[in-house]
Amino acid sequence: MGALAVFPLLLLILQIGANNAKYEPNWKSIDSRPLPEWYDQAKFGIFIHWGVFSVPSFGSEWFWWYWQKQKQKPYVDFMQRNYPPDFKYQDFAPLFTAEFFDAKEWTDIFASSGAKCSVLLVYLSGFTLWGSKNSWNWNAVDIGPKRDLVDEVVTALRNNGDIRVGLYHSLFEWFNPLFELDAANVFTTNYFPTSKTLPELYELVVKYKPEVLWSDGDGDAPDKYWNSTGFLAWLYNDSPVRDTVVTNDRWGYGSICTHGGYYTCSDRYQPGHLLKHKWENCMTIDKKSWGYRRNAPLSDYLTIDQIVSTLVETVSCGGNLLMNIGPTHDGRIAPIFEERLRQIGQWLKVNGEAIYNTTAWRAQNDSLTPDLWYTFRPQEKTIFSILLKWPNNGSVILNEPVVTGQTQVVLLGYGPLKWEPVKPSGLQVHLPQLSFSQMPCQWAWTLKLTGAT
Amino acid sequence: MGALAVFPLLLLILQIGANNAKYEPNWKSIDSRPLPEWYDQAKFGIFIHWGVFSVPSFGSEWFWWYWQKQKQKPYVDFMQRNYPPDFKYQDFAPLFTAEFFDAKEWTDIFASSGAKCSVLLVYLSGFTLWGSKNSWNWNAVDIGPKRDLVDEVVTALRNNGDIRVGLYHSLFEWFNPLFELDAANVFTTNYFPTSKTLPELYELVVKYKPEVLWSDGDGDAPDKYWNSTGFLAWLYNDSPVRDTVVTNDRWGYGSICTHGGYYTCSDRYQPGHLLKHKWENCMTIDKKSWGYRRNAPLSDYLTIDQIVSTLVETVSCGGNLLMNIGPTHDGRIAPIFEERLRQIGQWLKVNGEAIYNTTAWRAQNDSLTPDLWYTFRPQEKTIFSILLKWPNNGSVILNEPVVTGQTQVVLLGYGPLKWEPVKPSGLQVHLPQLSFSQMPCQWAWTLKLTGAT
Amino acid sequence: MGALAVFPLLLLILQIGANNAKYEPNWKSIDSRPLPEWYDQAKFGIFIHWGVFSVPSFGSEWFWWYWQKQKQKPYVDFMQRNYPPDFKYQDFAPLFTAEFFDAKEWTDIFASSGAKCSVLLVYLSGFTLWGSKNSWNWNAVDIGPKRDLVDEVVTALRNNGDIRVGLYHSLFEWFNPLFELDAANVFTTNYFPTSKTLPELYELVVKYKPEVLWSDGDGDAPDKYWNSTGFLAWLYNDSPVRDTVVTNDRWGYGSICTHGGYYTCSDRYQPGHLLKHKWENCMTIDKKSWGYRRNAPLSDYLTIDQIVSTLVETVSCGGNLLMNIGPTHDGRIAPIFEERLRQIGQWLKVNGEAIYNTTAWRAQNDSLTPDLWYTFRPQEKTIFSILLKWPNNGSVILNEPVVTGQTQVVLLGYGPLKWEPVKPSGLQVHLPQLSFSQMPCQWAWTLKLTGAT
Amino acid sequence: MGALAVFPLLLLILQIGANNAKYEPNWKSIDSRPLPEWYDQAKFGIFIHWGVFSVPSFGSEWFWWYWQKQKQKPYVDFMQRNYPPDFKYQDFAPLFTAEFFDAKEWTDIFASSGAKCSVLLVYLSGFTLWGSKNSWNWNAVDIGPKRDLVDEVVTALRNNGDIRVGLYHSLFEWFNPLFELDAANVFTTNYFPTSKTLPELYELVVKYKPEVLWSDGDGDAPDKYWNSTGFLAWLYNDSPVRDTVVTNDRWGYGSICTHGGYYTCSDRYQPGHLLKHKWENCMTIDKKSWGYRRNAPLSDYLTIDQIVSTLVETVSCGGNLLMNIGPTHDGRIAPIFEERLRQIGQWLKVNGEAIYNTTAWRAQNDSLTPDLWYTFRPQEKTIFSILLKWPNNGSVILNEPVVTGQTQVVLLGYGPLKWEPVKPSGLQVHLPQLSFSQMPCQWAWTLKLTGAT
Repeated sequence: MGALAVFPLLLLILQIGANNAKYEPNWKSIDSRPLPEWYDQAKFGIFIHWGVFSVPSFGSEWFWWYWQKQKQKPYVDFMQRNYPPDFKYQDFAPLFTAEFFDAKEWTDIFASSGAKCSVLLVYLSGFTLWGSKNSWNWNAVDIGPKRDLVDEVVTALRNNGDIRVGLYHSLFEWFNPLFELDAANVFTTNYFPTSKTLPELYELVVKYKPEVLWSDGDGDAPDKYWNSTGFLAWLYNDSPVRDTVVTNDRWGYGSICTHGGYYTCSDRYQPGHLLKHKWENCMTIDKKSWGYRRNAPLSDYLTIDQIVSTLVETVSCGGNLLMNIGPTHDGRIAPIFEERLRQIGQWLKVNGEAIYNTTAWRAQNDSLTPDLWYTFRPQEKTIFSILLKWPNNGSVILNEPVVTGQTQVVLLGYGPLKWEPVKPSGLQVHLPQLSFSQMPCQWAWTLKLTGAT
Repeated sequence: MGALAVFPLLLLILQIGANNAKYEPNWKSIDSRPLPEWYDQAKFGIFIHWGVFSVPSFGSEWFWWYWQKQKQKPYVDFMQRNYPPDFKYQDFAPLFTAEFFDAKEWTDIFASSGAKCSVLLVYLSGFTLWGSKNSWNWNAVDIGPKRDLVDEVVTALRNNGDIRVGLYHSLFEWFNPLFELDAANVFTTNYFPTSKTLPELYELVVKYKPEVLWSDGDGDAPDKYWNSTGFLAWLYNDSPVRDTVVTNDRWGYGSICTHGGYYTCSDRYQPGHLLKHKWENCMTIDKKSWGYRRNAPLSDYLTIDQIVSTLVETVSCGGNLLMNIGPTHDGRIAPIFEERLRQIGQWLKVNGEAIYNTTAWRAQNDSLTPDLWYTFRPQEKTIFSILLKWPNNGSVILNEPVVTGQTQVVLLGYGPLKWEPVKPSGLQVHLPQLSFSQMPCQWAWTLKLTGAT
Repeated sequence: MGALAVFPLLLLILQIGANNAKYEPNWKSIDSRPLPEWYDQAKFGIFIHWGVFSVPSFGSEWFWWYWQKQKQKPYVDFMQRNYPPDFKYQDFAPLFTAEFFDAKEWTDIFASSGAKCSVLLVYLSGFTLWGSKNSWNWNAVDIGPKRDLVDEVVTALRNNGDIRVGLYHSLFEWFNPLFELDAANVFTTNYFPTSKTLPELYELVVKYKPEVLWSDGDGDAPDKYWNSTGFLAWLYNDSPVRDTVVTNDRWGYGSICTHGGYYTCSDRYQPGHLLKHKWENCMTIDKKSWGYRRNAPLSDYLTIDQIVSTLVETVSCGGNLLMNIGPTHDGRIAPIFEERLRQIGQWLKVNGEAIYNTTAWRAQNDSLTPDLWYTFRPQEKTIFSILLKWPNNGSVILNEPVVTGQTQVVLLGYGPLKWEPVKPSGLQVHLPQLSFSQMPCQWAWTLKLTGAT
Repeated sequence: MGALAVFPLLLLILQIGANNAKYEPNWKSIDSRPLPEWYDQAKFGIFIHWGVFSVPSFGSEWFWWYWQKQKQKPYVDFMQRNYPPDFKYQDFAPLFTAEFFDAKEWTDIFASSGAKCSVLLVYLSGFTLWGSKNSWNWNAVDIGPKRDLVDEVVTALRNNGDIRVGLYHSLFEWFNPLFELDAANVFTTNYFPTSKTLPELYELVVKYKPEVLWSDGDGDAPDKYWNSTGFLAWLYNDSPVRDTVVTNDRWGYGSICTHGGYYTCSDRYQPGHLLKHKWENCMTIDKKSWGYRRNAPLSDYLTIDQIVSTLVETVSCGGNLLMNIGPTHDGRIAPIFEERLRQIGQWLKVNGEAIYNTTAWRAQNDSLTPDLWYTFRPQEKTIFSILLKWPNNGSVILNEPVVTGQTQVVLLGYGPLKWEPVKPSGLQVHLPQLSFSQMPCQWAWTLKLTGAT
């Protein structure tokens, strides 16, 4: 039988699991699983793209593909100018050194950002960041860093305690000859998932117990080829993280935005309105790449204003934000990334109440005042109204809330504000005259409404 | 005899120069030269430390010395952990690749910062950034970048037109065997300056025509050994930049803060009061190093508040600020540096009038209100009062100016303000109630006083 | 099931083969296959050990094992002295460049040696010299040479036409994690042969059609674990080389000198007497290593006298000689190896008649005269008597042959000699008085006897 | 003045020397110095070409020149195929590792060859094999081996005691910018010899006390430019080796075959007749290169027959033979070189009497019998007649000697031979009937005649 026969460990797991199979290996059953609560409450996470592509650190984490398959000119030129003839992508691996990598430092930075989960890319284009038995000599323990990077990150995050561990895993590989063989067979054979993808997915879960399993890259192959529902049934029924694990929707051609866990739909997905299904906006601080690009100028990095605005809009519309950074080949988080992350944390320190543990409200943004988004805490019946711009005239009209006699308005980080009802609906809130240094925060400000509906 | 005999080109220059020798090769004469005006008007420049030390990019640009001479543990450990045994500092040179270096991009960033001059390190520890004949196989044209980096920077700056070109040149070398020989001879021989330092200084000036020649590193040898006054006499009398060139005070043991051009006195020199002699505060955005340090966390970089505050204080006390950045081994200015430089530029766009072409006023800072510094434009009789903090109470007292009936106060970037005289002296200025987005700038604000003394 | 299911190509082959299954997958049946005739006639072949170990080129082709597993001091010291800390064996692979490799040149040298077959190591310690799908990123097409070295050698040998192609393949790997997993399971699981060894063996045979398949390295695992008899049954029944392929006896723990094709028994096996079963003496020109050793002094290389003597003794005792050379990491056959090979060829050009297509005679060596060995051509009833020493006294007694009136004695390369019978048996042959330059050859001389028994 | 002023050490030497100035700095005086006796007696030496060119180890030790200046296609192609773009010759230096270099082993091999002196290339194309102060960062102590290779070789040779130490030094450099400057000035300036060549020559002599100083490479500049006679006057008058040092004739354009010490005239000089002036035949075992060539096939190496023949002819004509080998970048003498050297030693062990301490005889070769050369020991009045071919007919006629009643003929390594006078002159010598293994030696045989003239 398939991949499951490969490791006795897994067989054992399967046998244990056989008794309490809540979920069956089909989408109807898999899709029926409720999303573990913690995920919707977390709202903000950090995505990390790190790997051999961090060595050329040029253009994109898809460097290999763009260079060798698509032969895009900038990549071909870059290689011709800087490397010996016949230099192959594989030759970058020994240069992936990670000598400055300190998982504790990374975790401190992540914690300072207010992130509640962190998703590490552990496998793209075949190179694994842990010492995979199924990727011998093409993983971070055998070549390059010679360290189990996944273990270090996971351990440091667990020691922190406040940030959930997630792992990114790409199903396919660009150039794996077994995948190419399967593809040539129009996916009627499955040598590749059997000997590589599935054993590694099982191993990852059993070994590192991730609470987010971020699947990607189906290689135009259907979920059947990947045996995705079979794997997810095991993950949901029998894996050590069966109660808390969250996955996304990238489990084979056609599953995106349709099946699996939360929806990602597309990279940098931002619908601008409320979705029925829980979704995630995964995006990047470097606007043009997930992996680190050495030659990205400052103008390619999102400003903190843009990031806060994205976070607010995403949460208002019911999504989570997974904001990506690309560490360097030597294991550093560049100061510009650190700055952005710490700035988010500064903002969340004041405004976190309006983000974490909230849900979308009945209105997402205000129908009258632009750049004003709502979130809601149902248990406390609190409405949060987040202003992306500070009004120059000293007051702002909130058109959506229905006020009552008990309505109170508080500027987070400051205190109660005066307000008055306006016709036909809503209220006008008077903002205080604050000097530059008296402002509770920068970039966006939250009005917290109680006693309103 | 001596170095001057080495290159016929130089002999020629000397002969041409022999007729109009204004300055003699002694300190009294050299020191009597008036500082070219442009320098005092420029106020703000950018310092660039770039070289083979940018490859390890660890600890300091004095990496070689700390590692090999002082054997400091962090350096020794770093090398043992990451490099083969017997790896020498020289082996870093081929790794100094500069593949992303684009002098045009650098110049754009410098221009955006409002800098009026830029001083490039061209020689430290013997490795020259241009193809020096006297440093064969140990310069950027023969090894590493294989480009004349000095020429590229100088050309791009000249094309820009608004930024004066400066070059940093260290007199001594840590490990040059000829220097060591001279040192062992207690500087009674001068094989090193004769065959290396002086020919290169002459070549630099003739070839690149710098308007700042930033000398450093006397190696505990007296100016006589370096033949400094001889060289400076030529520089001031006969060199192609004799009319505009500016130098500093590091021309041999004992000359610092005493002889030469403007004074630097010490790194990060900030006297806090007015000096009689023109001086410069050379300092670093990375608080701990002049060369790029890969592992510098965000907290090691000055905030923009700190930088603006330093600029203001320096100019108020009659100094120029030369703010340093360290490019990477592959030729990039890291985004965190770019961000700081562009932020300075944003501030100067609004407040430049209070910085450029000003002189120190009779008072440097206010005797009553803290964090308030003065500058002055004598030709227009304008006093500038720069507030490092925006007053929370809506008004600020300037204790130093003497007001008249014609006194007018303007907030730069905003417009006229109301004020009233106070007893026993000075005036109280009423600041406008401005929302966050209405502020003319951040970090510091300038009140421009006319009709006051 | 098992490995055979992995590649549809192989399934096809198996189905085709299903009809004419002469041999069954058990030793009794496998061992019953007669040795293809060509092998016994060939007598002399060249063995080639080439791979990643040719990069350190130090100590042994077992470098990896001695260094990392046994931690032998010379290897540990060598690495510490010359490589960065954390340098791994895998880091040698990119340095395996083969830039001077020219299979045509190799073939010319082999041909000049008189070799009738050539066995190329294609797989040791996991690294394959061809682009194995099952060894992605750990083969000569993906890393290092970036060429299919097996294909180049095989093609060049086939173009020559006179040298049979052989391939060496090691069953186990030192550090493959799947092999280690199986070993930990006391070989009750077979993840390693299923996913690596067997697919590669099938691929090698189908793709390169070797006529010698030289198996090695059972890793202390029984043939059952390797499914050796299953593979050999396919090889003998259905493979494209089923009629001519020859294998050896290293197919699992316990099979050596007992089962399979010809016997090798041990490295450098030289029984000194006739064996009933066809055997091979595989040995090395560098006395201490199979892989190239950069630091081998001349005294570690066999002299041509020793090599000729070994060839003669081996053939007399019914064996074949497989003489090994180790090419360099850049693809050269060092001149000292080339010299030895060409010298063998010089000798065989004169004496080949006494070697090729012969069988062991009833006596192997002479009972009276030392250093005198016999071979025999049954179809022509010719006895060859090979003298390793030229007798100083001008004549030699052959004690074993029974002479007749028709007996004729010829010195190969010279002509007929006088002889006389001696009592109680044999004959005395009178050698000619030849000056140095008149000798038909050096190192050993052949007396060809016809009309004797 | 000039270079002599650079180092006080040298000044000192000059002053000491001032009193006993036997030789003046002009050719007439320099040429009048008698050749120290030891040199003519030594006859056979080993030449060693080793340096950065041993890294590419391709084509020639003039690799740099052929590649970069002449742009010869094989060199350009080699670089394009195997190295990154912009790779420069200087980038080879770190790869000159010498990890297997053991001067003791080299010396043992040299001693086994019977060589009486050994000349090490210490400087070609600017890179010095010792830590020259005047070649900082471009010498074997600063880059690459990080060892003083000259010191190690010199020390090991001196410890052996039987081999004189020689050093090869090239006057010019291909690409040194100071040399190029002088060349552009048609050698009317002398910046290069002043700051590089001469200081290094003095240092070499003072530090390593070579007894052969093998000058080369005048760069088409006259001896005046190099100040050759000045240097030689010092060398002959005042240097620490003034009594025993020997030099050659390559001291500036026009001096070759005309001035200096012994004559070399051209590489591989073999006049075929007696010269009046002592001369040397410097040649190479690898027929095509002085530096090691990785890709030299066996056919490019001289056979031992050719080498012995060359030695014999050279000595007969009054020359010395300096036979070159090229060590590898990692410090080894390849076994093929070792074999040739040891073979020469085997021959000299038997025939050395006919080589060392001999002079040319009145006849160099025989007028009747081809391949027969003569040498002579005047003090013992012994004539040596060396046969390059062993006569097939058992006797040889020596046409040149005049025999007497006391004439005796001995075959070296064997014993007395019979002979008879022949008409009109000379003698016929009867050679013994020796089997292959009874021969006293191979390749050439010596008849020693006493009592003849």
